[in-house]
Amino acid sequence: MITSASNPKIKHVALLSSSKKERSATNTFVIEGTKLFLEAPIHDIEEVYISENFNERLYGGDEYKLSGVMLDIFKKLKQTSYEIVSDNLFKKMSDTVTPQGILCVIKIQTVSLADKLKEFNDKPVKIVALEGLQDPGNMGTIVRTSEAAGINFILAGANTVDIHSSKVVRSTMGSIFRVPVIYTDDLYRDIEAIKSTNVLVYAAHLKGEQSYREAKYSDRSMILIGNEGRGLTDEATATADTLVKIPMQGQVESLNAAVAAAILMFELSR
Amino acid sequence: MITSASNPKIKHVALLSSSKKERSATNTFVIEGTKLFLEAPIHDIEEVYISENFNERLYGGDEYKLSGVMLDIFKKLKQTSYEIVSDNLFKKMSDTVTPQGILCVIKIQTVSLADKLKEFNDKPVKIVALEGLQDPGNMGTIVRTSEAAGINFILAGANTVDIHSSKVVRSTMGSIFRVPVIYTDDLYRDIEAIKSTNVLVYAAHLKGEQSYREAKYSDRSMILIGNEGRGLTDEATATADTLVKIPMQGQVESLNAAVAAAILMFELSR
Repeated sequence: MITSASNPKIKHVALLSSSKKERSATNTFVIEGTKLFLEAPIHDIEEVYISENFNERLYGGDEYKLSGVMLDIFKKLKQTSYEIVSDNLFKKMSDTVTPQGILCVIKIQTVSLADKLKEFNDKPVKIVALEGLQDPGNMGTIVRTSEAAGINFILAGANTVDIHSSKVVRSTMGSIFRVPVIYTDDLYRDIEAIKSTNVLVYAAHLKGEQSYREAKYSDRSMILIGNEGRGLTDEATATADTLVKIPMQGQVESLNAAVAAAILMFELSR
Repeated sequence: MITSASNPKIKHVALLSSSKKERSATNTFVIEGTKLFLEAPIHDIEEVYISENFNERLYGGDEYKLSGVMLDIFKKLKQTSYEIVSDNLFKKMSDTVTPQGILCVIKIQTVSLADKLKEFNDKPVKIVALEGLQDPGNMGTIVRTSEAAGINFILAGANTVDIHSSKVVRSTMGSIFRVPVIYTDDLYRDIEAIKSTNVLVYAAHLKGEQSYREAKYSDRSMILIGNEGRGLTDEATATADTLVKIPMQGQVESLNAAVAAAILMFELSR
């Protein structure tokens, strides 16, 4: 059982949790909780840590007494190696107030835009592009909603919050394992590359000339969503084929970014 | 200038920020930032605190050098009294990492369901009812989206997060001043009272028998939204005239509560 925060493995997990640079350098990230462990692809799981207490719940009794989620975890743990960590230390490793007792290091599956464009070359495709989104909760919610709305992949400008930060991972509710998110250093170039494959671009914009309900969507469509405070830059806006607005009553200046994205995504899948 | 955290006024602001009980007892709450100050109804502003630095930005130069937001604030502050607080102390009072330098105590305007039902007795009405919503960001986003979608008022079960807590207030982006939120100790009784005025009730439910796109909405409609993790209780579900589901692709179990609410609200205003 690991009990010391100076254990090199534990130090590395702490670094991965706090540092985007470390995540990029090692191409791994941290997930926490039973739901994410169960949804993580088995071949991407590199390390598993369970708390003392969690270990007792799993192995204290008879395997046949386990049921539901705990039985599923028991079975999945048979396929991975794992380390037991003292409850105190686990609390320190955890990003949540009431840790569930299981935490893993996961390999990041990198996806290239070229591959995705090839994959969807002659098929309908729905894409979301994000420019400078900053709030982790919004980012995670957009990934989660994207899966539900059948979005094929997300393109994210380099100034968008890191999908592998713990708060984003948590709020994706597992969709992080199923919706490819491609970060790009040159968002505008890549939007143009996508457009050149017959994809029409719809930007959510307060100056939109058309209601999102009236816009005609192609079966190859991309939605652009901008930063929470500033919206889309002029440069991103200029790439759009259509600026769509979501009609708003009252004195509301704009909708929450995840809400605006959700309304457009579900309109696209209508 | 106030410099001490033991100043009785400052202590009271701190208590208001942290305690729902204090907010209820005094019928006041705290708002922060330039946007909320400008949107607060002038007659509801009971106390204003500005930081030393903010004061210098306002009065350090000539009034005629001010523009935009700062000029608007300058004008509004002429109609209220205010106190200057040292920068250090203001930082402690503030709920944000980078405080803008203005914070107010606001009178809570209590609204009764009976009054609202009378007001909308013979008119179209759109209502959202919340059961046990817990996340402050979701709650604030729902209030903000409600204004944009033309919802007339919100009914909230007593176990729903307090609308006047600082995180909720902030994420309403000012809509808190314009969307009446009525808390009730008996949600089911009040839903039935609303139904008895010819309002049809639509519950967002994973077991919904009808897609939200196919449901026929009345011009007197109410949407029910449940807790983030557990959804609606059986008791709340039983009050619904129609269970509507939002069709989801992939392995998504449910949508974020604020996203589900937004999709239904905008469908209602279609």
